[in-house]
Amino acid sequence: MKKLSVLFIAFFSAIILVACGNDDSSSSSSGTQVISQTSNNYYQGVIKNGHYLTSKSRGVSVQQNDNQLNLKGFENGLLSISKDQFPTDTYILQEGQYIDTNTAENWLGRKSKSNPDGLNPSGKDTEVPLYLQQMDEQDFMEQSHGDLKIKGMTIGLGINSVYYYRKEAYGAVYQKTLDDKEIVKQGKAIADKVLQRLRKNKDLKDIPIVIALYKQASNDSLVGGNFFAYSVNKDGATSVDNWKSLDIKNYVLPDETSSEVNTNDEDAFENFKNQVQKFFPNLSGVTAQAHYVDGTLRGMHINITTQFYGQSEIISFTQYVQTTAKKYLPNSIPIDVQISSSEGIQSFLARKTGAKNFYSHVFTSY
Amino acid sequence: MKKLSVLFIAFFSAIILVACGNDDSSSSSSGTQVISQTSNNYYQGVIKNGHYLTSKSRGVSVQQNDNQLNLKGFENGLLSISKDQFPTDTYILQEGQYIDTNTAENWLGRKSKSNPDGLNPSGKDTEVPLYLQQMDEQDFMEQSHGDLKIKGMTIGLGINSVYYYRKEAYGAVYQKTLDDKEIVKQGKAIADKVLQRLRKNKDLKDIPIVIALYKQASNDSLVGGNFFAYSVNKDGATSVDNWKSLDIKNYVLPDETSSEVNTNDEDAFENFKNQVQKFFPNLSGVTAQAHYVDGTLRGMHINITTQFYGQSEIISFTQYVQTTAKKYLPNSIPIDVQISSSEGIQSFLARKTGAKNFYSHVFTSY
Repeated sequence: MKKLSVLFIAFFSAIILVACGNDDSSSSSSGTQVISQTSNNYYQGVIKNGHYLTSKSRGVSVQQNDNQLNLKGFENGLLSISKDQFPTDTYILQEGQYIDTNTAENWLGRKSKSNPDGLNPSGKDTEVPLYLQQMDEQDFMEQSHGDLKIKGMTIGLGINSVYYYRKEAYGAVYQKTLDDKEIVKQGKAIADKVLQRLRKNKDLKDIPIVIALYKQASNDSLVGGNFFAYSVNKDGATSVDNWKSLDIKNYVLPDETSSEVNTNDEDAFENFKNQVQKFFPNLSGVTAQAHYVDGTLRGMHINITTQFYGQSEIISFTQYVQTTAKKYLPNSIPIDVQISSSEGIQSFLARKTGAKNFYSHVFTSY
Repeated sequence: MKKLSVLFIAFFSAIILVACGNDDSSSSSSGTQVISQTSNNYYQGVIKNGHYLTSKSRGVSVQQNDNQLNLKGFENGLLSISKDQFPTDTYILQEGQYIDTNTAENWLGRKSKSNPDGLNPSGKDTEVPLYLQQMDEQDFMEQSHGDLKIKGMTIGLGINSVYYYRKEAYGAVYQKTLDDKEIVKQGKAIADKVLQRLRKNKDLKDIPIVIALYKQASNDSLVGGNFFAYSVNKDGATSVDNWKSLDIKNYVLPDETSSEVNTNDEDAFENFKNQVQKFFPNLSGVTAQAHYVDGTLRGMHINITTQFYGQSEIISFTQYVQTTAKKYLPNSIPIDVQISSSEGIQSFLARKTGAKNFYSHVFTSY
């Protein structure tokens, strides 16, 4: 396991230590404020003593992921699971404050004499795989007498699908694909231990604690992994016995390796791609992340990279993509499209769930 | 003057030569199609033989600008001037097809025996400044019997405010600030010649030709230059005699060098900036480009760079910026905000002219 860098410790210390007044309307006697919600798709967040209250352990996850898509996908996926259990119009999201950096590092390590809390199996790195790769805590709060009280928690556990290891320091990286059944078994066993440990804190004794298991994508994947199971543990339960399976899959399009993507969706994307590439032949790369739940396409992130620069070209291209996307891409699902050149993002389009038309914006400069 | 690279020639040839069918509804017998307008803020563009019809000379402008902000600002500013003369609901924008690459290179060069068409004064680089730095042509078309006919043209001429030169190849770069009166005088003289030359083409004999003069920003500027004069030349006029002044200024905020920015606007931005930086102290850079017309703020592009990564942090920060922008920044004008980390754009906010609320989008990944 990689160690948290000094940089990160400095980062979080800076956030926590700098003193500062607060002058917003929703401040309380305890110096806690709530960030206004601008969409019911998002939670209100927490400002404490004038600053955003950051996660006590997140730096660890950043260090734990060689493929940062596993981090983004994990955090976003966990938010989706949380929203079903803790609706955004009732609960305020506080970034994890119960599992601190030290605890997270210990739990993510191997069990050993010097680290009895390690949630990964004891043994040599070359012989026994690490299963638990990352962890995220989300706290769900309600306001009470001007203060915030914890009313629920969600824990995400990222389990490796591929174990990467070295036989010697700085040596070649070896990899071992882990068995799906073992991933499930290990994930559930770790979840049990985590739940037991959390229940020992008096704040967390009687609140609902949701635990969700995520299968990490491989390091070379162009899309993150996926959550495959979750459980809602009410009333102070100390062992998890009500696992629910999740059928979530993420793919990259065009899909050259697997034939698991729905053919209609694949054809729709291919048609879109061809139309776009006709506009500037050989000059546009068009790829997408496609998100499936229960076998149905639920969203897409599309990336178009081009080599042109002219403002009129970008405007025309963006209008063309907007018309083409509406014509060829699946209806109703949320889709966003980033159009970038080597100089960065040039324009962007997005359609929200259920909307008919795309919003578009061309980035300009004075 | 820098020479057009072979790469650029290859680029434009590729666009023009690759043959391809077209299958859109608005195609004509001549293989010309029009790109649907998705907003009346934008022009319809032109597709010919299945591909976007790119400018015949734009590659030259790309090479001519050491500061690419002069290019973006120039193209955007010219579009604004054009929209006043050739409304987007009547005219179709075709990228310049009359001034080709060779012509543009010759015109941008010094007048000499081998280059009689040079619009820059003859003389040695070390003694006589180059005034004309870039040029842009926009053609305004109307559909007639399924074909496009040119009905108007706009020409932008970028005049240096600072002349950069070397005393020897690869030697140190020297600079000379050019006199404002001389910039105006040279710009107007060049405009006369350009108009005369364009009128010789029978397509352009009797159409209105708008010529606009742009003062290039220095190479180290964080915002582009500004248009300072334009003329609308109707009825086949061959000399420009109706110049109109433009009072357009662009500034960078926070404004450390000049005291020309309106104090109220500066305070508003400062307050916004302070609020944003409170959220993540020492970790957020906040700058803006501010656009003034006739002394009034008409728009802002704001850039926020941060060092955080967490999805919940980005969402909370974006909501916070949205509320703060609405509270502190000037009303009614169009404003966009890009929030980026070292990994690229993380989220974005925009408010259109006259709108009350900001649209926001957080970029995510599956």
